[in-house]
Amino acid sequence: MTEAWIDELRNIVGPRNVITGSDSLAWESDGFSLVRGQGMAIVLPLDTSETVRVMQLLAEEGVPLVPRGAGTGLTGGASPVQGGVTIGTARMRKIFSIDPIERTAHVQAGVVNSDLSLAAKPHGLFYAPDPSSQAACTLGGNVANNSGGPHCFMHGATTRHVRGLKLVDAQGEVLDLLSSHADPAGLDLVGLINGSEGMFGVVTEINFRLEVLPEEVQTVIAVFSSLDAACDCVSEAIAAHIGASAIEILDKLTITAVEDSVFAAGYPRGAEAVLLVEAEGGALEVQETIDLVLQLANKHEAIETRRASDGAERARLWAGRKGAFGAMGRVAPDLYVADVVAPRTRLREIVHLAVEIAAERNLRLGNVFHAGDGNLHPNIAYDRRDEDEVRRVLEAGRLIMEACIERGGSLTGEHGVGLEKMTHMCDLFDDADLSVMHRVRDALDPKRRMNPTKVLPLRACREVRNAGMPLSPMENPEGKL
Amino acid sequence: MTEAWIDELRNIVGPRNVITGSDSLAWESDGFSLVRGQGMAIVLPLDTSETVRVMQLLAEEGVPLVPRGAGTGLTGGASPVQGGVTIGTARMRKIFSIDPIERTAHVQAGVVNSDLSLAAKPHGLFYAPDPSSQAACTLGGNVANNSGGPHCFMHGATTRHVRGLKLVDAQGEVLDLLSSHADPAGLDLVGLINGSEGMFGVVTEINFRLEVLPEEVQTVIAVFSSLDAACDCVSEAIAAHIGASAIEILDKLTITAVEDSVFAAGYPRGAEAVLLVEAEGGALEVQETIDLVLQLANKHEAIETRRASDGAERARLWAGRKGAFGAMGRVAPDLYVADVVAPRTRLREIVHLAVEIAAERNLRLGNVFHAGDGNLHPNIAYDRRDEDEVRRVLEAGRLIMEACIERGGSLTGEHGVGLEKMTHMCDLFDDADLSVMHRVRDALDPKRRMNPTKVLPLRACREVRNAGMPLSPMENPEGKL
Repeated sequence: MTEAWIDELRNIVGPRNVITGSDSLAWESDGFSLVRGQGMAIVLPLDTSETVRVMQLLAEEGVPLVPRGAGTGLTGGASPVQGGVTIGTARMRKIFSIDPIERTAHVQAGVVNSDLSLAAKPHGLFYAPDPSSQAACTLGGNVANNSGGPHCFMHGATTRHVRGLKLVDAQGEVLDLLSSHADPAGLDLVGLINGSEGMFGVVTEINFRLEVLPEEVQTVIAVFSSLDAACDCVSEAIAAHIGASAIEILDKLTITAVEDSVFAAGYPRGAEAVLLVEAEGGALEVQETIDLVLQLANKHEAIETRRASDGAERARLWAGRKGAFGAMGRVAPDLYVADVVAPRTRLREIVHLAVEIAAERNLRLGNVFHAGDGNLHPNIAYDRRDEDEVRRVLEAGRLIMEACIERGGSLTGEHGVGLEKMTHMCDLFDDADLSVMHRVRDALDPKRRMNPTKVLPLRACREVRNAGMPLSPMENPEGKL
Repeated sequence: MTEAWIDELRNIVGPRNVITGSDSLAWESDGFSLVRGQGMAIVLPLDTSETVRVMQLLAEEGVPLVPRGAGTGLTGGASPVQGGVTIGTARMRKIFSIDPIERTAHVQAGVVNSDLSLAAKPHGLFYAPDPSSQAACTLGGNVANNSGGPHCFMHGATTRHVRGLKLVDAQGEVLDLLSSHADPAGLDLVGLINGSEGMFGVVTEINFRLEVLPEEVQTVIAVFSSLDAACDCVSEAIAAHIGASAIEILDKLTITAVEDSVFAAGYPRGAEAVLLVEAEGGALEVQETIDLVLQLANKHEAIETRRASDGAERARLWAGRKGAFGAMGRVAPDLYVADVVAPRTRLREIVHLAVEIAAERNLRLGNVFHAGDGNLHPNIAYDRRDEDEVRRVLEAGRLIMEACIERGGSLTGEHGVGLEKMTHMCDLFDDADLSVMHRVRDALDPKRRMNPTKVLPLRACREVRNAGMPLSPMENPEGKL
């Protein structure tokens, strides 16, 4: 690396915090995506003011960049496919303050999700969104992707919990929107920045809303001899307006993988499906919800139901669910994690379709999903060294996504669009919608240096459709349509 | 009116639905604002497609316009001060569908707020945001202002309840964002449009999230011999993380006005303050919340507490609160309704200040407010024919707003910025923030025809501060800084 500005970056953040060459390989890709990209440097600023100096320098030099949290994304959103610089938040780990009365927390963007709940606990509070990767993923990454998690069934995704934030934009200007209130005056820029996948700048600080720890929590599993029965049980619970906080389903392949792994949760081996339901709130209310779950499980011929007898058992049941992606590593070296949304009345139909699509292509499909939200994660275990298998995996992923969109669902539940799903934005939006998104993007980043080539397709969808959509952006790694 | 395009408008929507001349006087102003403006015509399209034709015509002619719901706003946002055309949603009153399983409602923008809850009731559902004007205000207006209401303490303001919408933009293009999901793919345009006060176009259809009617609702009032005691009681309830759904305070002037009016609710005359608290949810949980309220009320020496014994009494207690603004008409012909936010731990201090500021100026101040949210409504009864009183009212309003912002509050809780609060945006945001808002506004409306001269100050705040801020936009009705 001989660019003079890289030395200048070293002056700003310290030489140890600029990573180049072979040391930067770990930043090539994200959690499970096939997308790979290598930039010129990874830069790790300490705080907002270092970020400002970094961004000003990159603006002067015209260098493209991508912000990055822990890199647990699934769609290539944090991969530096555009070259240039990756700005990591790994050193921004401060929890500045927790206000127990207003129930808020002011944190740096690099704070790990679960660390916030840990810090809030002594005040009787917690941070609600709980992605499976919560022990690793950062709150800044959660904001960029508007991340979800099992308990978002009750509490809503990240955007509902962000009161304000500080963003350093492409020019190195600071937008200080930390003190936003329930009804933001003027335009809701905080809402706009949530889920913007790094297109507007680097979020350095966030002011989160915290929730009160519930008086009572109960967790129950119901075991089914078919995935259909588990899905139908959920659809009926949704129709009955069940007051649960989380409703999850794991299928046989997933159960087996979990039980074979360090995350072993005591799910019954051999079962076709496990339904995991949690309720939180007042004691009586929780009891009523759990009673309804048991009643519906019996109606749908559950072969076993079991309540977690204490906090330790509850934690174990959840560790299995949250470790499911990792556990799938036992099935094959690579994992394709789809993230799609289906109408909750059509869970059974979509899951069926996913199973069929995978079977026809001789693929190993596991299903583990936020059933209550209709947010499915059909996971395909594969080996990236097998080119033909990779092709079949991507084809299956695309067909499952299209099936969801056709039925009124969506192409992403919680993990963003990134690069992998970009061309599918044309299935969900028309040219007028996308044109507005482009114009808003340009309003904040006129030179398109912030995570360029991602999220928004560059050509009109009409052209994409006429030309025939590329099978996947991996065949077209520039992200150009 | 001789403009040819006005005849063209009559061809599109029918001659009865274009209002001009003296018939249009009712559209000059909004609920309580002093702002007045007269345009060339009021147009009432029937649906999205008529709106598209109207907007295309106005774009060709370069006519400025303002969208308008029921005109119950407080800051002049719906007044046609820019001249041109007002596009009203009065004919868009269809509730297309309610999906009891997904708990959603697809409606036209002109549906009255309370009509949606009425339609949802047979399905065991309701629409949560409940502004005081809910019997008149429209859902489209609620979206434009991100409206709140007493129960938003628990349920959050409008933006939390909007899943998707359809907007006709300044060029007459339709943005169909009706099928947005919990995690919108790409940029969250729906979130951006919420609270945008007509700057982006006319919202014609909305897809709302509905809530499940609670098993149990209880309402209690506590009567205090000082406003301080009521405020302190609320601050302590907030610190105890009370699980109430609504926490409201009314002061003596307001209580008297209500009890003298058709909204008489049985609030004890002569009391200095009434605290109105509601809890909803499971029966036991509700009981615990109400018990805590009573305990705290006693601790703060409430002189009386009373539970609503049935639904009829509950409705009566709420009718008093919601009729409070109207009832103030008994005190003086005009009412200035402030809408500011204070940190909830400093309620007592801010209310004190408001009382002092009004007393020093010999003004009649009533306080009725969403205490749980820290959203204060200091109301000043006055007579607009008395020029000096008007001057004192505006000065008091400004001072109260500034006191809130200085203490970490905000300039609007739920009624938007409109024209009256525009210059105060400089107290809350710096030039970088406002510049981004301007650029985003221009991205959707490059010619600034949509509700121009409102919400965002036109010059840099630096200049505003150097020049000395105008006392109020009423002295400067063009809205130019």
